[in-house]
Amino acid sequence: MCGIFGVYGHPEAARLTYLGIYSLQHRGEEGAGIVSFDAKRARCHKGMGLVGDIFNEAAIKSLKGQIAIGHNRYSTTGSSSLVNVQPFLFNHKNTPIAISHNGNFTNTAQLRSMLEKDGAIFQTSTDSEILAHLLTRSKEADYKQALIWSLQNIKGTYSLVLLIGDLLVAARDPYGNRPLCLGELAGAYVLASETCALDLIQARFIRDIEPGEVVFISKSGLEAVKPFAPAMPACCIFEYIYFSRPDSNIFGYNVYQARKKLGEQLAREHPVSADLVMPVPDSGTLAALGFAQASGIAFEQGLVRNHYIGRTFIQPTQYLRDFRVKVKLNPVGGVLKDKRIAVIEDSIVRGTTSRARVKTLRQAGAKEIHMRISCPPLRFPCYYGVDFPTKKELVASKHSVDWIREFIGLDSLEYISLQGMLDSMPLAGENFCTACFSGKYPIKPPASLRRSKT
Amino acid sequence: MCGIFGVYGHPEAARLTYLGIYSLQHRGEEGAGIVSFDAKRARCHKGMGLVGDIFNEAAIKSLKGQIAIGHNRYSTTGSSSLVNVQPFLFNHKNTPIAISHNGNFTNTAQLRSMLEKDGAIFQTSTDSEILAHLLTRSKEADYKQALIWSLQNIKGTYSLVLLIGDLLVAARDPYGNRPLCLGELAGAYVLASETCALDLIQARFIRDIEPGEVVFISKSGLEAVKPFAPAMPACCIFEYIYFSRPDSNIFGYNVYQARKKLGEQLAREHPVSADLVMPVPDSGTLAALGFAQASGIAFEQGLVRNHYIGRTFIQPTQYLRDFRVKVKLNPVGGVLKDKRIAVIEDSIVRGTTSRARVKTLRQAGAKEIHMRISCPPLRFPCYYGVDFPTKKELVASKHSVDWIREFIGLDSLEYISLQGMLDSMPLAGENFCTACFSGKYPIKPPASLRRSKT
Amino acid sequence: MCGIFGVYGHPEAARLTYLGIYSLQHRGEEGAGIVSFDAKRARCHKGMGLVGDIFNEAAIKSLKGQIAIGHNRYSTTGSSSLVNVQPFLFNHKNTPIAISHNGNFTNTAQLRSMLEKDGAIFQTSTDSEILAHLLTRSKEADYKQALIWSLQNIKGTYSLVLLIGDLLVAARDPYGNRPLCLGELAGAYVLASETCALDLIQARFIRDIEPGEVVFISKSGLEAVKPFAPAMPACCIFEYIYFSRPDSNIFGYNVYQARKKLGEQLAREHPVSADLVMPVPDSGTLAALGFAQASGIAFEQGLVRNHYIGRTFIQPTQYLRDFRVKVKLNPVGGVLKDKRIAVIEDSIVRGTTSRARVKTLRQAGAKEIHMRISCPPLRFPCYYGVDFPTKKELVASKHSVDWIREFIGLDSLEYISLQGMLDSMPLAGENFCTACFSGKYPIKPPASLRRSKT
Amino acid sequence: MCGIFGVYGHPEAARLTYLGIYSLQHRGEEGAGIVSFDAKRARCHKGMGLVGDIFNEAAIKSLKGQIAIGHNRYSTTGSSSLVNVQPFLFNHKNTPIAISHNGNFTNTAQLRSMLEKDGAIFQTSTDSEILAHLLTRSKEADYKQALIWSLQNIKGTYSLVLLIGDLLVAARDPYGNRPLCLGELAGAYVLASETCALDLIQARFIRDIEPGEVVFISKSGLEAVKPFAPAMPACCIFEYIYFSRPDSNIFGYNVYQARKKLGEQLAREHPVSADLVMPVPDSGTLAALGFAQASGIAFEQGLVRNHYIGRTFIQPTQYLRDFRVKVKLNPVGGVLKDKRIAVIEDSIVRGTTSRARVKTLRQAGAKEIHMRISCPPLRFPCYYGVDFPTKKELVASKHSVDWIREFIGLDSLEYISLQGMLDSMPLAGENFCTACFSGKYPIKPPASLRRSKT
Repeated sequence: MCGIFGVYGHPEAARLTYLGIYSLQHRGEEGAGIVSFDAKRARCHKGMGLVGDIFNEAAIKSLKGQIAIGHNRYSTTGSSSLVNVQPFLFNHKNTPIAISHNGNFTNTAQLRSMLEKDGAIFQTSTDSEILAHLLTRSKEADYKQALIWSLQNIKGTYSLVLLIGDLLVAARDPYGNRPLCLGELAGAYVLASETCALDLIQARFIRDIEPGEVVFISKSGLEAVKPFAPAMPACCIFEYIYFSRPDSNIFGYNVYQARKKLGEQLAREHPVSADLVMPVPDSGTLAALGFAQASGIAFEQGLVRNHYIGRTFIQPTQYLRDFRVKVKLNPVGGVLKDKRIAVIEDSIVRGTTSRARVKTLRQAGAKEIHMRISCPPLRFPCYYGVDFPTKKELVASKHSVDWIREFIGLDSLEYISLQGMLDSMPLAGENFCTACFSGKYPIKPPASLRRSKT
Repeated sequence: MCGIFGVYGHPEAARLTYLGIYSLQHRGEEGAGIVSFDAKRARCHKGMGLVGDIFNEAAIKSLKGQIAIGHNRYSTTGSSSLVNVQPFLFNHKNTPIAISHNGNFTNTAQLRSMLEKDGAIFQTSTDSEILAHLLTRSKEADYKQALIWSLQNIKGTYSLVLLIGDLLVAARDPYGNRPLCLGELAGAYVLASETCALDLIQARFIRDIEPGEVVFISKSGLEAVKPFAPAMPACCIFEYIYFSRPDSNIFGYNVYQARKKLGEQLAREHPVSADLVMPVPDSGTLAALGFAQASGIAFEQGLVRNHYIGRTFIQPTQYLRDFRVKVKLNPVGGVLKDKRIAVIEDSIVRGTTSRARVKTLRQAGAKEIHMRISCPPLRFPCYYGVDFPTKKELVASKHSVDWIREFIGLDSLEYISLQGMLDSMPLAGENFCTACFSGKYPIKPPASLRRSKT
Repeated sequence: MCGIFGVYGHPEAARLTYLGIYSLQHRGEEGAGIVSFDAKRARCHKGMGLVGDIFNEAAIKSLKGQIAIGHNRYSTTGSSSLVNVQPFLFNHKNTPIAISHNGNFTNTAQLRSMLEKDGAIFQTSTDSEILAHLLTRSKEADYKQALIWSLQNIKGTYSLVLLIGDLLVAARDPYGNRPLCLGELAGAYVLASETCALDLIQARFIRDIEPGEVVFISKSGLEAVKPFAPAMPACCIFEYIYFSRPDSNIFGYNVYQARKKLGEQLAREHPVSADLVMPVPDSGTLAALGFAQASGIAFEQGLVRNHYIGRTFIQPTQYLRDFRVKVKLNPVGGVLKDKRIAVIEDSIVRGTTSRARVKTLRQAGAKEIHMRISCPPLRFPCYYGVDFPTKKELVASKHSVDWIREFIGLDSLEYISLQGMLDSMPLAGENFCTACFSGKYPIKPPASLRRSKT
Repeated sequence: MCGIFGVYGHPEAARLTYLGIYSLQHRGEEGAGIVSFDAKRARCHKGMGLVGDIFNEAAIKSLKGQIAIGHNRYSTTGSSSLVNVQPFLFNHKNTPIAISHNGNFTNTAQLRSMLEKDGAIFQTSTDSEILAHLLTRSKEADYKQALIWSLQNIKGTYSLVLLIGDLLVAARDPYGNRPLCLGELAGAYVLASETCALDLIQARFIRDIEPGEVVFISKSGLEAVKPFAPAMPACCIFEYIYFSRPDSNIFGYNVYQARKKLGEQLAREHPVSADLVMPVPDSGTLAALGFAQASGIAFEQGLVRNHYIGRTFIQPTQYLRDFRVKVKLNPVGGVLKDKRIAVIEDSIVRGTTSRARVKTLRQAGAKEIHMRISCPPLRFPCYYGVDFPTKKELVASKHSVDWIREFIGLDSLEYISLQGMLDSMPLAGENFCTACFSGKYPIKPPASLRRSKT
């Protein structure tokens, strides 16, 4: 995941962009950056870590101009280094060009090899730099045509925000895999991965950028084109399950409600005899609420979150086992003692964290522990921008639900069904990519990745 | 508020103390420190800010010895400066003495004037330094007797942890105003403001230090004395309402359950016709859960908390109003739109934050907003360690509930009754100090404060 | 100016490079960087500021491999930004390529325009990036040929150290404008701008890289070629006058001796009746020593240097005039009082610093102040890598020596003659570029610069 | 050594104090601090490290008031910790008191034991805190009398600057062991260890504070008293030899001239047949100049100082021997090759640094190396504030000059004679303490120290 953001035509463009990527922080904690343009010169400020630590007032003030774009970088398989933090900024014929990208190109290897044969040099390992080279090598007359030509040569997924001189551009791949929306604030246009970023700056939501749409924003206003062959939508269902903030609307609908419906469906599919329903905070909270309301079992917060957990934490002594899960979420003995509990999680990846967590719940006195998962077993890697571990590390790719139940140490374990999950969504099921559950990839993954990841 | 912690007889004493004050961080964010003693030399490391930022591995390693005490400093009326951060460490006749204090002495001015007449010099404005001077000026034969004599001369509230050479001491004032408990880990004794600190280091809870009790821990084991005239208990009820972590037990009982009971009582006293019940997170969450369960109205999380809010945040543009409340808690339009909502808060101090918050809920589409408060109106200042604003600033000290309702912009506003609050507590009502609600002060406040704060 | 350095075939390549650029710090204080290569992967660490502040042990340890190159960046007219700090690192066909450059290309504008027409994108404003693009666009069979072709297309001055995979390359322009030497340490090859860097790491000096020579260092050993048409040498005489460290040998000869000879010649050309000879430390020290010895007048240190002057200094109050010169060099009243003094400076650029300095000497009691300059009047800009101010700001380009004398407030002012300066050099005069004094440019400056700088 | 400074009656008192301790940085690099007073409140800012790193504009601005004192802390045998950094600030009866001290009390143990018996608590291990306790325990009527009584009870050496509310005080022990002078700037009074601090802020020198004098500065002006029995002066001769800056006047005379005279005397006592005279920079520079002028041998700078040597330096590889001396001072081969050289040093402590240095000079080609030392052999510890190593570590306390010559690897080694040193001083010889050379201690050292140091 990554977060992308852009503003066109506001005197405080960089400051709004700072607020935008601040509210999209959950989409990527590895690094962040902003590029602004003031009709003469583009300026860039970026760094590793969290938005709040990267920028200060002086940095924001230095980012002059009425156009700005920003980016939150998610920790991915590529190397973790400042040079890979976006936006990717370069100059071409006196025009500064900056790119913020969320998604994953699948024909990277071919494109890079082709470009290097033609003399291109690469300073980063990002998809954005590949797009940059395509853009400047196009024989098209202007940057608009050059961008369309470039995107026509790219396979894979992308939501993009580009600054090309005094032009701001938004683009979404034909499958609409990643979200991107358009808003308005005091006459300025705003682009954001999720609506929560519009909320924070009090911008008005206009509409989603549509799958396969490219929107050019300039002083002449908005120009929207759809230069790609139509494709079957393949929205990432994991955006609803886990990634997006619950107060956001994505793909046209509210995440909070979708997440709660998953919990209701889960309660219907896999009822439980329990004294209380509790989430693993915060990602399981809304499914747990839905489960509790549908089942009539009391909702409790059996795990208390420590809000001070930061990035640096001194290792505790060897005498303390299961410390890492405990420092983050402490069980409430007064609530759990001698109780039969239903714990709701959004997903299980490796299973090791759940295992440690369940142990702390047992120590706090829980009598029975039943776990319900608001997505089906994760069995296949994602090639479209989600950094799941390799297939080997996904516990459900090798093991049965019963094996996992025993490994984690549960009295019962149930996952929502694939159909149940799709039925809970606000959009019809055929609009989603479910490859991580089903192995049915709507866009052909690169051969090299198919090998290396399995 | 402040957090205090101590360890006796563990090879990793400073590391455990670090973890202890990490888990007591909510009791004081202004500064923190640790003092350790290794039979030869006492060492001290302290700083302004959060525990996670003040200590690194090198600092912990340098704090050698099997005895250590720690402190979290709460921002109080005294000056904010490193010199005031505790533990307060000094040397006397080759014995290092360190003091961690939670509470407030009420005869400070008299004691300080008396001591200065006798030649004492003061480097801080803390109560701890006054105790230090009493301790060394006592004519008693040993430090144990000297400490008892010193505490007999002090008026006010205190939970104390002291390191006196190779002696660890715990003390609670005769009213038991602030919490303090005793635990055990692998043969070592542990002292902590709240049990959540024992949980984190996986120490076993033994018992609370009792009101008026002084406990000496040395290589001969535990020695407990009660050297004060008995007093009517006056536990701070605000510890249950707001301060303590819900996973802690204090004054013998679980905070989570107490907080939920307040919500249930509130629902019985002041029912509401609403489509949903929601908290102002996180402090109102458990009362809201109790309210929802008692009323049968659905519990929802209409405000989503941004977990990345840190200490530094760049000021947004002037175009953005009510920004500060919004960046912390964003309303979920999909949940609130056209709904009648019951919002549960733990307390109202000035009313200005609630007012801004309610405005954002209205903008998100809430049709009716009813607020229920899980404590009675806050009308009087606290002289025992809670840094409420002066009486003038407490909105309920000057205004009626109806005035406040209109000021905040609510359809209805109700507070729990004093008796209802006391009835919801796990201890009988006469055990609590309720001065901030009733003005009945169990310990005479200092004359100067009485004047200046009203 | 800039400093460049490289190591081939040493297990501590990055650490030696760190020491190398540490000892070349005087050649550029704006930023520094190191790139290493360990047969698999290139790593880069760079930053703004001084070498000692940019690198720590962890950074050095992370720079694995037996080949490394480094760079000290001098503050030039280009923008001051981390992205411009060298070495410039990029990847081409799985080969990492890194460039450290000292000098200035003069056909930058044409090359850049040509490359951009061909689709090249630029992320920096450095000459190095232009060389990078030429290198990858060459149709030559291998990188050696491609580099030679690239350099054949470049006009201007350069001493270069390149890392191309497991190949280390050194190159000097046909004029030999900037120094570059080759050394040996425990079987490893070392390249450095000045011999003082060899001294620090206790490497043995082998020889200078010759003007117009390109040297390839690989596991097959050294391969040297001279692929350019021969040119008349044009060594920068300012390296002897000011830039290089006195303990270095450059262009084959020792800087200390050359600098002292300038002072001796100056004494012969422009004798003075004075009680003492003193330098403006440190740049004028050796010429002053030479002047004192040739004239028989006592050498004294009438100005004491404050060794703690760092990069941050709080502005003093407005009450203090001429503060900046005084905090750096304080006059010694006990030495200067009632004395006729001869002050030796290496050069005068704007004249304003000298003016303030002379004022402090007068206040300290000097009776007569005679200044002697160990280079002729600086009247023309440099297009080959020295960041003199524009012609307009060079005081000698507009004003007579007499005008300058009066401006600075001197009893007498004399410069060494052009011929006298050349006669003092260890090489015959025709080997030097003297454009900044004479306006005779050995390499045609770019048209745009000629306009903009005059 | 330490540096002390004070200002009375200037609107920029803290800023001037910052500049003052900046220019006294050579007297102590371990830490520094400033206390200011604005008639209402005293403020303090201090830190470990160099003045330039401890203070920023915000810190200076926060130090309000027209009175301020400062301190540079020298690394001494006491523990290195922020709490020991001066000025030592405390409050007594609403009066802030701050102390800056240069020197060493010799009856510390007795005073501390006496004070602790009386209940005093100690937070630091500094002499200043002992003075603080004496001051507040005095039965005298006012602070002036109390200070005099306190100093009468103290044995040892001190130059002191105190801030007592709106009173500024200067004091020097009866022996005048450490320097302290008085100046004037725009109607404000200034106190400083050395005159170089007056120079920097362009204050006018008035006079030295006299031995045994206490000066009170208040709105009524200056009041000077001499409350001690007269004593034979015992100025520290090492201030002239090494500590003070050459541009300072101390004890009434210029340091530069004194240091040069030592070199002249040395040339007369111990002539040498050499091709050149060179210093070990910077401390040996002026004696070398004097030696060269008296002997007629050419003065050269055979060692070039690296001005970028800072506090952090990454350890070089094990392949590099004698690295530490080389990185600081690099020999100039072009000057030294095949020459007979006379190296002038101010003193030899352990001899190990000289040994390594001489080795680098041999490697650079020096044919003969003769060393001349501008003070007699250092054979006894100092109890008055100079942190020489213990007697055991002083090479001259155990070994003959011939042994040391061989150990260092010299062709000849000679020290100036005790009488020759005294004859070179601007004051008559009987005014100086020469204990470190002669073992004749003018003030009785503490018994404990006498044992532990020998």
